[in-house]
This record gives sequence, structure tokens and C-alpha cells, in this order.
Amino acid sequence: MKNLDKFFKPENVAVIGVSKNPEKVGHVIFRNMLNGFGGKVFPINPNAESVLNRVCYKSVTDIKEKIDMAVIAIPAKLILNVIKDCGQKKIKHVVIISAGFGETGNDKLQNEVKKLLNKFKINVIGPNVLGILDAYSKVDCLFIPQFKMQRPNPGGIGFISQSGALGTAILDLVASKDIGFSKFISYGNAINTDESDLIEYLGDDPETKVICLYIEGVKDGKRFMEVCKKVSEKKPIIAIKGGKTNEGGAAALSHTGSLAGDALIYSGVFKQCNIISADSLEEMFDYALILDMCVKPKGKKIMVLTDGGGYGIISADEIIENGLELSELNKNNVKELKKLLPPIVSVRNPLDIIGDSDVVRYDNALSVLIDDPGIDIILVVVLFQLPLIDDRVVETIVKYNNMKLKPMIVISTGGKYVENINKKFINSGIPCYQFPYSGVKAVKKLVEYYS
Amino acid sequence: MKNLDKFFKPENVAVIGVSKNPEKVGHVIFRNMLNGFGGKVFPINPNAESVLNRVCYKSVTDIKEKIDMAVIAIPAKLILNVIKDCGQKKIKHVVIISAGFGETGNDKLQNEVKKLLNKFKINVIGPNVLGILDAYSKVDCLFIPQFKMQRPNPGGIGFISQSGALGTAILDLVASKDIGFSKFISYGNAINTDESDLIEYLGDDPETKVICLYIEGVKDGKRFMEVCKKVSEKKPIIAIKGGKTNEGGAAALSHTGSLAGDALIYSGVFKQCNIISADSLEEMFDYALILDMCVKPKGKKIMVLTDGGGYGIISADEIIENGLELSELNKNNVKELKKLLPPIVSVRNPLDIIGDSDVVRYDNALSVLIDDPGIDIILVVVLFQLPLIDDRVVETIVKYNNMKLKPMIVISTGGKYVENINKKFINSGIPCYQFPYSGVKAVKKLVEYYS
Repeated sequence: MKNLDKFFKPENVAVIGVSKNPEKVGHVIFRNMLNGFGGKVFPINPNAESVLNRVCYKSVTDIKEKIDMAVIAIPAKLILNVIKDCGQKKIKHVVIISAGFGETGNDKLQNEVKKLLNKFKINVIGPNVLGILDAYSKVDCLFIPQFKMQRPNPGGIGFISQSGALGTAILDLVASKDIGFSKFISYGNAINTDESDLIEYLGDDPETKVICLYIEGVKDGKRFMEVCKKVSEKKPIIAIKGGKTNEGGAAALSHTGSLAGDALIYSGVFKQCNIISADSLEEMFDYALILDMCVKPKGKKIMVLTDGGGYGIISADEIIENGLELSELNKNNVKELKKLLPPIVSVRNPLDIIGDSDVVRYDNALSVLIDDPGIDIILVVVLFQLPLIDDRVVETIVKYNNMKLKPMIVISTGGKYVENINKKFINSGIPCYQFPYSGVKAVKKLVEYYS
Repeated sequence: MKNLDKFFKPENVAVIGVSKNPEKVGHVIFRNMLNGFGGKVFPINPNAESVLNRVCYKSVTDIKEKIDMAVIAIPAKLILNVIKDCGQKKIKHVVIISAGFGETGNDKLQNEVKKLLNKFKINVIGPNVLGILDAYSKVDCLFIPQFKMQRPNPGGIGFISQSGALGTAILDLVASKDIGFSKFISYGNAINTDESDLIEYLGDDPETKVICLYIEGVKDGKRFMEVCKKVSEKKPIIAIKGGKTNEGGAAALSHTGSLAGDALIYSGVFKQCNIISADSLEEMFDYALILDMCVKPKGKKIMVLTDGGGYGIISADEIIENGLELSELNKNNVKELKKLLPPIVSVRNPLDIIGDSDVVRYDNALSVLIDDPGIDIILVVVLFQLPLIDDRVVETIVKYNNMKLKPMIVISTGGKYVENINKKFINSGIPCYQFPYSGVKAVKKLVEYYS
């Protein structure tokens, strides 16, 4: 297995091609690397004295310190000499941001680069990538300014994307919900580090609990299958395949030069390798969230607790339609709940504790449900618009979830007021979804993964 | 047809049961009614001198002015006398918020109320409702404080919900995206104004362009079908049915006392009445947005314009999988686009104008696409994380959309920075979706509605 640690946990990093112009790629990357990363960052620009008050070097060979990782953001035509410099400086990990290689038909240059990399034994991510990000070490060489894209909190999701722009757009969205990531890697032309290398690496990465994958095509199908089979035994892999149709496949060919292949073949490969297939980007991260956060469920019997009757009904519909089951309360617990809840509440599943619920009522209900051996998973709906409920209920739900007795998920819909509450759930390790539809689909994947 | 105008456009409103306690339902409603509504609002409380610095009346009969509409928020057991007062005062429109009638088995009281209402010819929405809201007149008698639930901007979506809590939660979410509404009505026990009356009324309401419906059961199936057939010829009706499964149906019975009925029967009824069926709450409003905003498409040939290759591929996949088609560019326009776009851009559909796109490139591309007769619908992807793009591109897309030549929709994914941009699209009349998945599904419904 390739050791890619120095891409994500380097000590000293060189950014090659740091312009004084704040709109230029190299400048943006240098600025991002100065924000949070604990190691030293060296700007390379033969034509500038300093950038952002840091002295520039003419070449990496001028730096005295050992350099673990270099990021190259210069025009393609200048790249060969720069790689030679990296080789001479014994830099073994290089991210090549620059485009203009195989993806534009310039195979000749790409092959020359490849030869040089082989000669110097350099591991490369790229070329033609948006960069990589480590939410723990704060390595951030994405050429996207931080004001345009929120960076994710540290968390358990590792995201590998063949498409850089797609990756950053979705990362921005998901990060804005406080969903945590370990690493994001845009791997572009994959000159010598491909999807399989990255999956294998994340498979052994203790910071990564779930692997998400956007691929358009796979270069070495046999190795991809071997790696995925092995890794999916250790942690879930969720994938979305771009170019499932002939039309999409034709577009993929002109995007990353990928032979998209037949949708059915991919679908079969995913199944054989225990890769969880997602139909949409949204679904991929819905699944990742629950797989990252939840304990293993004993079965597929779900209890619904809700302060809104309509949401209880819809949740029950979704549970049945997704092939899951509603749990049955045992007789003692029915008695106990009848004691604890107001007489107007009908003790059944879904358990609708109605619109005047407060934190005490949720606590009473959960105190019984959490120990009921007939319940494998608890789905809690909290509609925070209702008058007597407030965010103290978050603490209560977290209290029961922290017992780690069974998976708990929350459904909570709303605008600004609720958005912040939902972040509290997520920051406390409880998967939180806007709708029963998305939440129950995620539960289904959790059950399937562990069964 | 029932004239329900005075519910939504009253001049003088009485709120009956306005407590001094700011947590109580009547107080919350009174406070909401004081914020924005242009008419006069009279608080009724026999035991208080004043609330929120307004003099209280002991009964509606003490008010000199004519009262068009009253909102009742007192315990069920006190209601009969209050309704008599309303009758005496010749109030013809009453919202009964109070619960504790048929839905809790208290049919006797509900029948007595019904008789009184008949006697005085009073139209009632309720009992057992969260209230109603008119985004134009600012009638707002929802018993949800405004800090807990954002109120929607005026717009074209009318939303009728049998479940109040469900309605407010989703309204809060959708309003936070600046999606505009005409009216929201929670109709609960439907003592003398039911879903069919409300659909019929919104069918003739000039402020409502699309009707959204959450129902658990229908009381008079024949009338429901007659009304929906008639109304759906004038404007789209989108519905979601709670209690599609046996388990969900059982829950519906205990929620609103609805006989949920067989899912297949509902599915057939929806089809016969040209009701657009939504599988989830999220989908319902995705569909409503496009149907509210877009002009009629000539056909189902879609052009994809994108600054991110991966999103182009996924969009193409979704288009094909949803039974739509990718349009073909005519030869002249291919030539024209090749002139206007950089040589690295491959002129095809999806048209990927790549990651260094700016507003000028979008403008150039759209200037050709907007007039191409082979294109029925334009789907524009803008990934705003990319370095050279900014919100000036909103103005450009709005410029072409305002020509009203063909439907245009935008796909734009991201966190805080992008959220605000997406609101600009929506406020300018362009449906904007986070993902190709949801956007293309909405396009499908638009095409189906007009074909």
C-alpha cells in the first residue's frame, strides 16, 4: 500500500507558483495554507521578493529545511523543470493543481511528467485537481478561497472525488451543516495515485470512519474491486457513479477522459464489493452521516417518537415502504408510558406525544423506549416550531444517545431557528435529517450495512 | 362555492381568549396579528383590562365596529357561549384553534358546535388547527411565535394541510429559502370547511398559482374529485397523502380521525383528477417552485450549461433516467458558440464551460442557447465556489429568463455564501435547486403538467 501520510500530515510544505495577485490559484492556496496548518509553509516564486509578508524562494532547492510535500500551481508548460527541482530536493509527495495535460489531449506532456515522477519516485495527486484538504491537520491546498467555501469540521467522513468542482460544492454545503470530514481529495487525472490507492489509504486511516466516492470511471477495474472488497469489510464505502447513461457517459469522456462503462456493470461491481450505491449526492452524505455516527443496530424494528402527528404518519409510511418494521411496545412498557404521559396520548407506534410536548415529556418517553428490547432503532421527530418545545430537548436526546444502546436519529424541519438546533444534534453525534423521507432511507442503509 | 375571502382579507378581526401570559396560544396569535396586518385587531378577555397595551373587550358583542373574522383560542368547554356571541355579532368567519372535539372522541360537543354554526350561518376553519396565514394581507393567526417560525414572503404557492405542526415546520423551512406563498391553511377537524372547499377557493384565488396539499383522508370523495378535476385545469395541484401504508393509515386514524383508505385508490384518484403526486414533502415544494415560476415548455428537450463537468454528467444522467431528452445544438449555433467560447471548451450538451468561467462566458453561452429553437428548457449549473464566478452571473441569468422564451432553472450547491445567492435567483423568479437530482425531477413534473 502506498504511504500517503505526508500529503495529509506534512511538517514543511512548499507552494510553487505563489503569485502576488490574490485572485491567482497559487496565491489562494498559499493563503489557505497559512490559516490553521501547524507546519511551515514556503512560497516559491522566482520573480517576487515576498508574498503576504513571507520571503519567497526562487526554487525548492533554495530551502534549507526538509520539505515533505509540495503543491504545484504553475502553467503546465513550465512543469518539467519544477518537478526536477522537487526530485533533487527529495520531495516525495507532490500535488499538481495545474491543468493542461491528458484531459486536454496533451498526452505527450503527461507521459514526460510520468517518467520524471518514476525516476524520482514521487507520489503525485493530480494533475488537473482542485487540491486536497485534511480537516485535522488543516492542510488546505484547495484553490477555492475560504470565503467562497466553508471548510468542514474534523469528523469521520473521507471524501474522494474525481471531479474537483463537484467535490467542493458539495463539501461546502455539507460543511455548512457542521457535518464533519476527515479528508477531501480531488484526484483528477490520477497520474500515479488513483482512486484505488486513495480508498486503500483511507481504509487504514484511523480518522476516517466512512468513505464517500464520486467516480466517473475506474482505470484498473480488477484492483478497484480487490481494494474495495478488502476496505468495505473494515468500514463502509458509499459511491456515486457519474455517467450511468450513454449520454452522461459521453460527457464523462470529455470531462476526465474516463471510459464510463456500462451502468449495469458498475452496479454489479458495487454489489460484489459491498459498496453502498447512492442515487444522488444528497443521499450519499445522508448515508455517510448515519454510518459515521450510529452504533450497530440489532435489527430493523424502529420506534417513532414524535410531537407532530403528520410526521409520525409519514415516518411510518416510509419505514414500511423501505422494507423496515415498526417495533411493538411490550406490555409493561405500554403500562409505564401510560403512567408517564398525559391521558390524551395514545400509546402506540408511532408514539405521538402531541403538539404541547415539552422536554420533560420527551425525557419520560425516551426513558422507557431506550431500554425496550423490542426496539432496535429510535427515530425521534422534534418539530421545534411548536410552542412549548425548545433546544433543551437536544440535551435530553443526547443523554440517551450517549448510552450507545441503540442507534437514534432525529428528524427536525425548519428555517434559521431550527438550523442551529440541528447543528447541535450533529455536533453531539446524532444524525439529524430534515425529512422522514431522507432519514428513513438512511436508516435502511445502516440496517443493510450491518446485516 | 363558499366565499372565504373574509378569512384572508378581513378588515376587523377579533381574537377571543387573549391571555396576558405571552406563552399562551391567544396571546401569541394576538401578537402575530399586530405585526403587519393592516386592519384593526380587537382582543377579547373578560378578565383583563388590557394586553400588549390594547384595551380588552369582555365579549365580541361589546365591540362597536363590524367584525369580519374572529379567532377563538379558549378551552373547548367554554366555546358554545362564545359562538353564540359571534352569531349575535353577525360574524360569519371564525377560526377555531381550540382542540378537544371530535379528534379526542368528544363528538357530542363537536355536534353541538356544528348545530350552532348552522343556525348562525358561520363559516369555520377548524377546530383543532394551528391557524391560517395570508402572506399578502398578513393575517397571521398561527399560534407559533414568529421567532420560532419564519413567515413566508408573498408568492404563488397556496398550502393546505390537514396536519398543523407538519405544515408549520415545512413552511418555516421553505420560507427560509425565500420561496413565496399566498396562503397557508391548517384545517384540522374540518367542521364545516373541508379540503374541497379550500381547494375550490384557492382555485379561484388570483394570488395562488399552485396548490399544495397534505391530506390524511378525504371526507367526501366524490366532491373532492369533482373539485380537483375542475381546479387542476386552471392551476396545478400537488398532493402528498399521509397514511399510504396500513401502519401509517392506523396512525392517521388516531391523529385526525381520518379513514386513510387504500393507497392504490388514492393513487388512482390523484391520476384521474390530474393531481401531481409527491413522494415526499421536499419534492412537493420542489415541484411547486417550478410550476409557480416557469413559463410553459414547448417540449422535453433540455440543454445543460455548466461550469462543473461532474455536475454536467450527473445532470445528463438524471435527464435520461427521468425520461427527458438532451437537446441537440443546431449547426449554426455550434459554430457561433465555438467563436464565443475558449477553444478548450467542447461544444456539446452538456455544455461544460469549465472551472475558470466568469459572467461573460455564461452571457456568451446563454445569448446563443436562448434563441435555439431545438432547446425547450435550459438547465444552468453554477458552482459558485469556483474562483472567477460571482453573483453578477445572477443578473445575467435573470436577464435571459425575463425574456420568457423558455423555462430556465438553476442548480447551485453550497453553504452560507451560496445560500444568499440562491435566494436572489428565487426572488428573481428562477427556480433554484441544490442538486441535479431534485432539479431534473421538478423539470419532469413541469413537462408532464403541460403535456
